[in-house]
Order: sequence, then C-alpha cells, then structure tokens
Amino acid sequence: MTNTPKPYAQIPMQAVGPFKLIGDVETDDLMVPMATYETPLWPSVARGARVTAHAGGIRVTVIDERMTRSILLEAPHAGIARQRLQQIQSRHADLQAVVSSSSRFAQLIDTHFQVIGNLIYLRLEFKTGDASGHNMATNAADKLIPFLLGQYPDLSYVSISANYCTDKKVSAVNGILGRGKYVVCETTIPRKLCVRFLKTTPEAIVDLHIKKDLIGSIVSGGLRTANAHVANMLLAFYLATGQDAANIVEGSQAINHIETTPDGDLYFSTTLPNLIVGTVGNGKGLDFVLENLEGLGCTAQDVEPGSNARRLACIAGATALCGELSLLAAQTNPGELMQAHLKLERQAANVPTESHD
Amino acid sequence: MTNTPKPYAQIPMQAVGPFKLIGDVETDDLMVPMATYETPLWPSVARGARVTAHAGGIRVTVIDERMTRSILLEAPHAGIARQRLQQIQSRHADLQAVVSSSSRFAQLIDTHFQVIGNLIYLRLEFKTGDASGHNMATNAADKLIPFLLGQYPDLSYVSISANYCTDKKVSAVNGILGRGKYVVCETTIPRKLCVRFLKTTPEAIVDLHIKKDLIGSIVSGGLRTANAHVANMLLAFYLATGQDAANIVEGSQAINHIETTPDGDLYFSTTLPNLIVGTVGNGKGLDFVLENLEGLGCTAQDVEPGSNARRLACIAGATALCGELSLLAAQTNPGELMQAHLKLERQAANVPTESHD
Amino acid sequence: MTNTPKPYAQIPMQAVGPFKLIGDVETDDLMVPMATYETPLWPSVARGARVTAHAGGIRVTVIDERMTRSILLEAPHAGIARQRLQQIQSRHADLQAVVSSSSRFAQLIDTHFQVIGNLIYLRLEFKTGDASGHNMATNAADKLIPFLLGQYPDLSYVSISANYCTDKKVSAVNGILGRGKYVVCETTIPRKLCVRFLKTTPEAIVDLHIKKDLIGSIVSGGLRTANAHVANMLLAFYLATGQDAANIVEGSQAINHIETTPDGDLYFSTTLPNLIVGTVGNGKGLDFVLENLEGLGCTAQDVEPGSNARRLACIAGATALCGELSLLAAQTNPGELMQAHLKLERQAANVPTESHD
Amino acid sequence: MTNTPKPYAQIPMQAVGPFKLIGDVETDDLMVPMATYETPLWPSVARGARVTAHAGGIRVTVIDERMTRSILLEAPHAGIARQRLQQIQSRHADLQAVVSSSSRFAQLIDTHFQVIGNLIYLRLEFKTGDASGHNMATNAADKLIPFLLGQYPDLSYVSISANYCTDKKVSAVNGILGRGKYVVCETTIPRKLCVRFLKTTPEAIVDLHIKKDLIGSIVSGGLRTANAHVANMLLAFYLATGQDAANIVEGSQAINHIETTPDGDLYFSTTLPNLIVGTVGNGKGLDFVLENLEGLGCTAQDVEPGSNARRLACIAGATALCGELSLLAAQTNPGELMQAHLKLERQAANVPTESHD
Repeated sequence: MTNTPKPYAQIPMQAVGPFKLIGDVETDDLMVPMATYETPLWPSVARGARVTAHAGGIRVTVIDERMTRSILLEAPHAGIARQRLQQIQSRHADLQAVVSSSSRFAQLIDTHFQVIGNLIYLRLEFKTGDASGHNMATNAADKLIPFLLGQYPDLSYVSISANYCTDKKVSAVNGILGRGKYVVCETTIPRKLCVRFLKTTPEAIVDLHIKKDLIGSIVSGGLRTANAHVANMLLAFYLATGQDAANIVEGSQAINHIETTPDGDLYFSTTLPNLIVGTVGNGKGLDFVLENLEGLGCTAQDVEPGSNARRLACIAGATALCGELSLLAAQTNPGELMQAHLKLERQAANVPTESHD
Repeated sequence: MTNTPKPYAQIPMQAVGPFKLIGDVETDDLMVPMATYETPLWPSVARGARVTAHAGGIRVTVIDERMTRSILLEAPHAGIARQRLQQIQSRHADLQAVVSSSSRFAQLIDTHFQVIGNLIYLRLEFKTGDASGHNMATNAADKLIPFLLGQYPDLSYVSISANYCTDKKVSAVNGILGRGKYVVCETTIPRKLCVRFLKTTPEAIVDLHIKKDLIGSIVSGGLRTANAHVANMLLAFYLATGQDAANIVEGSQAINHIETTPDGDLYFSTTLPNLIVGTVGNGKGLDFVLENLEGLGCTAQDVEPGSNARRLACIAGATALCGELSLLAAQTNPGELMQAHLKLERQAANVPTESHD
Repeated sequence: MTNTPKPYAQIPMQAVGPFKLIGDVETDDLMVPMATYETPLWPSVARGARVTAHAGGIRVTVIDERMTRSILLEAPHAGIARQRLQQIQSRHADLQAVVSSSSRFAQLIDTHFQVIGNLIYLRLEFKTGDASGHNMATNAADKLIPFLLGQYPDLSYVSISANYCTDKKVSAVNGILGRGKYVVCETTIPRKLCVRFLKTTPEAIVDLHIKKDLIGSIVSGGLRTANAHVANMLLAFYLATGQDAANIVEGSQAINHIETTPDGDLYFSTTLPNLIVGTVGNGKGLDFVLENLEGLGCTAQDVEPGSNARRLACIAGATALCGELSLLAAQTNPGELMQAHLKLERQAANVPTESHD
Repeated sequence: MTNTPKPYAQIPMQAVGPFKLIGDVETDDLMVPMATYETPLWPSVARGARVTAHAGGIRVTVIDERMTRSILLEAPHAGIARQRLQQIQSRHADLQAVVSSSSRFAQLIDTHFQVIGNLIYLRLEFKTGDASGHNMATNAADKLIPFLLGQYPDLSYVSISANYCTDKKVSAVNGILGRGKYVVCETTIPRKLCVRFLKTTPEAIVDLHIKKDLIGSIVSGGLRTANAHVANMLLAFYLATGQDAANIVEGSQAINHIETTPDGDLYFSTTLPNLIVGTVGNGKGLDFVLENLEGLGCTAQDVEPGSNARRLACIAGATALCGELSLLAAQTNPGELMQAHLKLERQAANVPTESHD
C-alpha cells in the first residue's frame, strides 16, 4: 500500500474582527486570522470582538516573558548537589558568557532548581527576542552542559531536557515560574451591550463562570485551569501564524476572572500565563504566515527585539477572551448552543453561533 | 487596515513509515500522514517506525471508548440532589429513549456525578460510532436537559457544559472516567536493534524515562502525564486526518511505561487514555483528509460503527509511541538532539533527527 | 543518649458547640470534641456553631461511602490485561464470596481499573460497616490476590497496594471515584445574623470565597481543593475521636460553594468527598475516645452497620463548615485575624478568634 | 445532652530507634518519639532505623527554608498591577523595615506574585528562625498590608491570606516555590543487609517503587507526590513534637527516588520539600513536648536561630524515610503486610510489622 499525501494539509482559515485593543497594544481595526476545522469558531469569536470593540476595547498587559529548558544532572549526593547549585547560581556572568556564545539574542534571566535525592533539575530561563525560543533555549543548554560538567566534574549528564521545563505537557511549573508570554486581557462590557449583543446579563455570565469555569474545573481535577475553551482559539491562531501549536497544551491553562462592577456592568478577564509564540523561526517563512504576521503588525523592523512577539501574544490573548465571552454568554441560555450549531449547518452562513468547549 | 487571508492555512504534510502494527490492528505497510511546522518530527517518527517494524511491530489495544458531556443542574439542597440522582440513575432506559431521539448512533453507556453544595455535575457518557462525538453528545445532552427538568421540576438549569466533561482542558477526570479512545501501545525492541537503530541501550532509555518522564513530570507538578512530547505527534496526526486538534490538550496526558526485559531487551509502552478522534464529522469531508483516512484504511464501509475510529486511534497511538521512542533515545546521548537539528537545517534532508519536547 | 518518652502525647482537647444539625442527622445540642495544639480553633469553630444554630442549623447529606484498596498485577501485554479485566468484572459474585471469607462486614460494591502498558491497577471498592475500613479492605485484597492469580495464571503479583487506592496521599481519584464518606454540609445564614455574629456581610464573604478559595486555590496549583483550612478542623476532630488522622490529607480536599440568596442571605456549603472515619477499629478502644464517640451519639447498638460511622462523618463535616465560615468571615476584615490571635494570647480566654489557614 | 471531654486527648506515644544520621545532622543514638493510634507504625519505622544504621546511616541535607503568606490586593486593572508590583519588588529594604517592626526574627527573603485579571496574589517569603513561622508571617503580612495600601492608594485590600501561600492545602506552589524546610534524606543499603533485614532485594524494591510510587501516583491523579505513606510518619512525629500537624497535608507531597547502584546495592532517598516544623511557638511549651525536643537535641541555646528547627526537620525526614523503606520492602512480598498486622494484633508485641499506606 502506498500513500503519498498532498504536501500540505489545508486548514480552513478566515480573518475575524475587527478587534479593538488598548494597553500594551493600541489598535482598533485588527482582523485576526484563525485556521481551524471547527468553523463555527469564527462567528463566535467575531461576536466577542464586536461587543468588546463597542465596549471600548480589550486591555492587554504583558506581565512576563521567558523561555525555559531544564537540564538534568546527577551528583554523588544531595549535599554536593546543594553546594554545586550555590556555586552555579553565584556565577551568572559566567553562564551568560556561555549562553552568548550560542546566540546573540539569548539572555539568561534566571534559574530555578529542584533536588530530588541526588538528582538536580536545573531550569534555565531565557529571554529569546522575537523567537518563541525552543531552539535557542535548547542550544544554550547544550552549551551550558559541557561547561558545567567541566567546572564540576563530580556532576554527570542525565538529560538535556528533564520535563521541569516543561514543553507541551500539563504542569504547574510553567504557570508558577513562567514559560512564554504571560498576558492579561480585560474588558468591561456595559450591561446594555451585554444584553443587546450577547442576549444575556452580567449576572448570568458571572454565575455560569463561577459554577463552570471555577467549581467545574476544580471538580474535574483540573490544574491551573479555569476557562471554557481557550484551547480552541489558541489552536486556530497558532496555526494561522506559524506557531508550534502543540504549545496549546500549556496555553490551555488559562484563568478567567469575571465579576459584575458596582455599576452593574460586566468585568471580564482572561489571564493566559503561557502563550508560547514568536514572529521568527520555524514555520514563519511560509508565505501565508508572513502575510498574516504582517496583517497583525507583527513584522516591524525598527523595534526592539521581542516587541513583535509580545504584540502577537497580546492579540492571541484577546482572541481567546472573545471566544470565552461569546461561548459563556451562549451557555447561559438553555438550547442556544445547539441551535446555533444547527442553524450554521443549515445556512452555511456567517451567523453568530458557538463552538464547543 | 484590511487583512484578507488566504482561505486555507497550508501546513507542511508528509507520510512517514511504514508502520507495522499487531493486536487490534494488523498491518505492516502503513504510511502515516503528519502535518506540522516542526518538520524534524517526520524523520524522528520514521526512525521509531523503522525500528519497531524490525522488532516485530507495535501491539495496539483499545481498552475503552466513550464521549462525554456534563450538564450542570441546581437542586434546592444536597438532600434533594441525592434523591434526584438516584432516580435518574435508575431510569437508564428512559434516558436512552431521549438520547435515541437525538441521534441513531448515540448510546448512553454510563453516568457519573458530583454534588457540590446544591449543584449537580452530571457526566453523561456515550458511544458515538465513528464520530469523535462532541456534537452528538452535546445534542443528546440538549435533549436530556428539558426531559429531566420536566420530570423533576425542583431542579433548574445552570449549563449544558459544566467542565466536568471536560473538553480541551487539563483534568484528571478524563483519564480516570474516560473520554475518547483509551489505547495502549507496546513494543519490545531487542537490544541489538536498540543499539543499531537508536544508538543507545535499553538501560539508558529506561534510566532517562524514570528520571525525566516519571520523576521530572512529578516535579513539574504534572497531572497524569509521563511522556516526552506526545502532543507533537498527536497535533501532526490530528491535523492530517481532520480531527479537532485542540483535543491534544487531554491527548497529551499520556503515560509511558518502559523497562528492560529479563533477556535484556527493551519493553517500551505508551498509554494514551484520551485519544479523541473520529472518521466522520467536521473536517472529514475535505479532499486531502478523506484521502488520508482512506490511506490509513479508516473508511471501510462494511464494518460495525466505531471500528474505523478505533483503528484510527490505534494508529495515532502508535505514531505517538514512535516519536517517544526516538526522542528519548536521542536524549540519552549528550549533544545528539542539537546536532540533529543543526544537521537537518544544513542539509534540508530527510535524516534521522529529533523534534523537541 | 536515652529518651523514654511518656506513653502518651497529651493533646489539648475541648468540646465546642452546641451544634444544630438537620438532614441525615437531627440534633440541636451536640458538643463536638476537638484536640489540637492550635487552641484558637476552639472559639473560632464555636462561633460558626453558634451562628449556624441560630440560622436553623447545618444540613448534612451523605452522598456516598466506600473504602478502597488497589492491587497491582502484571499481564504479558495489554491485550491480555483487557481480557482478564473483562472476566474479572463479570464475576462479581465469585469475588464477593472471597471477600466474605475475609470479613462478615466487607461488601465489594464496585471495581475500577487502569491499564498502563501491561500493568493492571485494579481498584477494589468496599462497604465496611462502621469501620473506616483500611484493614478490612487490605484483608479482602489479600484474599482476592491469590484467588485471581489462581484463576488467571498469566497474571503476576506486583503489589497489594498500588497508590491507585489511594491512602493519605494527594490525588484526584479519591474525589472522583470516592473513598470514605462523601458528605455535603449546607446552611443559610440570614443577613442580619451574618452581620451580628460574623461582623461582615454575605457579599463580603462570597467575594472573598471566590478570590481566595476558588481562584487562589487554582492559582496555587491546587487539586480538587477550594477551602480555607478544613485540614485544621478535621485534624482536631479525628484526634478526639480516635481516627487515623493522616487521612486529613485527602480530607483536606474539600470544596466550598458559597453564594448570596435571592433574599440577600448567605448560602454557605462545604463539600467533603473524602471523610475517612469509623466508630470501631484501631484507636476506638481508648477510654476518652469511647467517651467522645458516646457523647456524639455514635455508639448506638441497635442500628444497621455503617450508620454510626455516617453520623460521625456528618458531624465531622459540620465542624469543618463552622471553621470555614468563621475564618472566612474574619478575613474579610483587615486586621481582624491578627488582632484575634493577639487578644487570645493576652487573655488566654475563650473569646471568638481565628485559627490560621 | 452534655459532653465534657477530658482536657487532653491521649495519643499513644513511643520512641523508636536508634537512628544514625550523617550530613547536616551527625548522631548515631537518636530515639525518635512518635504519637499515633496506628501503633504498628512503631516497629515498622524501627526496622527502617535499624537497617539504615547498619548501612552507615541516613544522610540529611536541608536544601531550603522559608515560611510564606500570600496577601491578595486588587488594582484598577492589570496594567497598574504590573506597575505596582515592579515598584514593590524594587523596595525590598522598605518592606524589610516594616517586617522588622513586626518581629525581630522575621526576614523577608523573597516575593513572588501572580496577576489574574486585576487581582494581585503577592506571596511573601520569610525566614522565621526556629519557629515554623505561621504567626510570624501573618503578623508581618498584617503590617505590610497597610503600608502598601498607604503607598499605593489605587490598590485595595481583599485578603490577608489568598491561598497562594498555601497553608494545609494541596498545591504545587509549596513544592515549587518552597514552604517550610526542604529536606533530602538518602541512604545506601548493601544488598546483604537488604536481604537480611528487609527480606527482599534491591531490585524488588526498585521495581515496586517505580510501579507504585511513581506510575501509581501519576495514575491516581497525584500532585507532586511519589511515596507510600509519608503522611503516617509525619503525623506521629508532628504530634510528638508539638507541631501543627495539619501541615502533613503539604508534608505528604514527598518524592522517593530509589535505584540500584552499580554494585547492586540499594540507593534509597526520600525528598520532603515541605516540612513545616519549629522548636518554639504554639504547642512547644507542653512538658512532654519540651522533653521530646530535648531528647532530639533540638533545644540548644547557643546556636544561631533556625538551627534547632532545621535539625528537627532533618530528623522528621529521616523518620519518614525509615517508614517508607520498611513498608515498600514489606509490600514486595505477597501476604507479608497482612500477616504482620495479624501477628501484631495477636501478640500485642513489638515485632517488625507494617502500617498501611
């Protein structure tokens, strides 16, 4: 049996918007490309974009950024592990010199560790410019390991990657110590707009959020997760912009915080601590990706390294917020979710409808 | 600013293999399509396919299958919640009658619940034929809710989806109670083949597995996760076969179990409790998807509902195992991971190399 | 150096109350003994008991009960594991016959399993009368293992306890599949009483609950946990009633659900899925324990097996609720927590004050 | 109904040993008091102490120590939260001045934060001398809050404790960022001693450890937990030494790492990242507690603050290791666990037997 597939998988793609952003990104006419087989996602996110634009926009704030790689070394015993870690942490300049030899962009910003028996899990944390930084971090780690083993011959190599990084796997460490861009997206929707655009009330959304996003996630045995379907929006955005979309695993660990304001309006926020995105590197050279990054304003040449990627992360986060807002609103009304799906299938039209969580 | 993207995102795709499978699927010439921006994944998985084929193949076993949707109802207090749940669970035939009215494929196989205060999280579990079943389960739930509210007027609606399902979010419930196909993949690699194809020993792989997959994941605050980069293989496979790839979030929660055999060979297994895949439904009608599903033998017409999807799940699992085997082998050797990457970039050739975890 | 300690550790103990309970337990003059070094806990819980009694009492509901032990067996491969598990699960009567030979109280009520590679984690779930049931479950498992190995010689022994039980360790499985008594405790505090006894408003408590119990726990990387300090109350109650207090580990995984009612009152609930308590067995023969169990009405002779233990679990849960209510109320007021501590230390008097979480 | 309990709960207590420790604590005749209703724990731990003493002792290493309290503040939006956090983190000396006014022992060593929407979870981390530090940290936080609100009037108070601390609750944050003493305990048992004292082989213990502690815990949906019954030993030790034993919740999140050495001996380690113990403070003034602390050498007067508490933590960790070693050894032999229990009950004698996990 032979099987020569097409050289490309063609994922349906559409731009939705316009988005209005304020804070770290200021724009009011942004169309966001999303590639997905789940095409009801488009009108759903578009509805969120529409109502937030009317409401004054989505405020985006980058709290932190870093890319990590944890190496795994072994010591004769924990006492020596402790001593070597103290030495290593006191030699930041020496480590940075090694890192600099591996890339002109990589900067070692911090290290964290765990000692388990005689094992050392050393988490190296870097700034990586506009790259998401997987390769840059691995390359730096690859240079640091022989350096460390040369300096401390009583340590030995176990692995260049020890799952304390951690990449594309569920963890708490990425949220607590940081990996990727940490973005907070916030908006306040006046009650009137909530009713008009979303067919529901601030109280109904808050009530659902508490019982589904918060308690429901806790009951499910979730981990640092409190949202409806952030993974859907991130997947579509990552595919359209050439990202390594397997990073939606940690990206999905986003936390909504939603409440009514004293004035009876809706404060709606989505916090995404692990947006692992870049504007250069693997996948970014494809024509449609370049075009999409340009359309998003993320290919500026005259800006400091990292600012294009931070802008991209903010847009990814805002896109996630819009999908969250729209789906939660729909689920407050019995039957709306399924009706929207059926309607869409019948009409194949771009009507407001909802994707699943 | 306008931004009219192409109607498709074109993700690079290649078929790798051939794979040899035994157990629930028997084949020895399967080429598996993978769509990804991370093209070093192709030769890496191919290396795993090659060595496992030489070793007698990968045994695939489907342990379970179901698709779930949890609804959220509210009772006056927990005492009434308990009483209503006892009644609901004793009326399986009545519930199934409602479910049958929503789809000819959906079968209610079980229910589980949690009561939190006066809230009822009722998890409905279905067989859904060859569909992954998101829509089928939601549709059935959408019919069951008015039925239940009609029968038990002291209950009230909160949500059609309560995150105890849970879809595309990190959880423990999906692994423990099941969601999607639960597939175990196993192979035994003779020591000689291990050395020849993978440039390492069974002992080195086992040692790395324990310190990285097991302890490293535990240290990272992982949840039901013990692997290197299963998300990478699932993403590429899901995109190539028209799946809703946001389900790699739960798919990533896979568990490797690896040990040396009494004969000194390598027993290597990857258990994937949450493979959410189908051969019909959204995304399956695209030409290249149909072609890929046909190439994988997953479009048989004369078989019982569900068998095409189970076959697809087995192939997905085997693909994941090959990627795990190849990457873990590479990481046992200092420097190999990065060298392979660099070599690939220089040559743009199809040499054995490794993707990241 | 020699060190002959006293034959007893003397932990300060006091009875607090009276408690008023409704639902599965009906009483209004219950004094609950609590043994703890953290004596500010007494007045704190007493305050909760007082306000809930005025408010009409705490409704207690037992949702489920079981004690578990997971054994670990190994099969040649997962295909055989699946076949053996199907056989084992179809022979409930045979298994129960073996279980009955181990104890006249133990009843096998369900089994659940996980297959990881060729490993079988088989979770045996029992009713164990008025015993917490650790020994009874282990003893039954100890009889079942040779039976199963005799019936299915291709299986082999790995362990009588496989951490899928799981005992005294953090997990999701205990909450999702059940271990111990699953108790829901609920109360509704009129706004006036809230202000008079707790010096705060329903809205302030709900707001703190959402931001601390729910979001705070999620942010901390918690697991099925949403409370302030349930472990404190369980420890003190377990010690006073002769329980194996190491089971507060899973006991701590309790979930508060708190909201304002349409009338502006405070609905306050604490759900405790894993109360592992008994009225017979280890520790219950000590004089003060017997006395305490008698005082709680948990040594009735003419009742069905299990009802004394269920009553005890309900009281444990209500005690936890009172401590939660009191501490959360205190934390809504800046400075109150510390002032109460200091006041208590100065006066060594039984004034309302707060323990820590 | 009245119920005046005894003023003390009397928990059976016995000293077990002698223990031999090396590394951060050097001693070879330490008797360790343990208070528990589960008296089979005594001979079980004693067996572990005996074999480790013969094997050269248990090496104890303190990796880190800190006590934490997270406060919860609210900002107008995340952009201001970020700005205020940058300011706060740049004013370490000012914060320390406030902290010093609350206690002469408390030293602010670090801060970490999470921003969720407009909420600030600020984790304050202190050295607290020989106290476990709950009160000291809360007191310091109580002083810091008005200071911060005074400096930054756009921030407002939500809670003095926000569950990002986190106290007596399951979390990942305590392990990753630290809370209490982080202690590693290691020993190497020659194969001969393993067979003679533990009736098993290094290989059997390692095999069980991998399948139970590691895979079993992962399968259970555990969180940073890989042990058999650490909670048992910590409870008994904490009660005997006047600790707030509800802290066994986080204490239970310990990680064993066990392997055979190249010489065929048994390397056995237990890492306990969250030992929350002190030698001064609540509960330490009771006569039997003082006596026990003295017996353990933890009341030295002429040493730097913190060294008594670190010594105590090391002993707690070593006690846990001995219980782990003994129980895992027993579980490698089918039937041994239950036989030991039965034997003990018949003889009421101090024979080697096993507690449950």
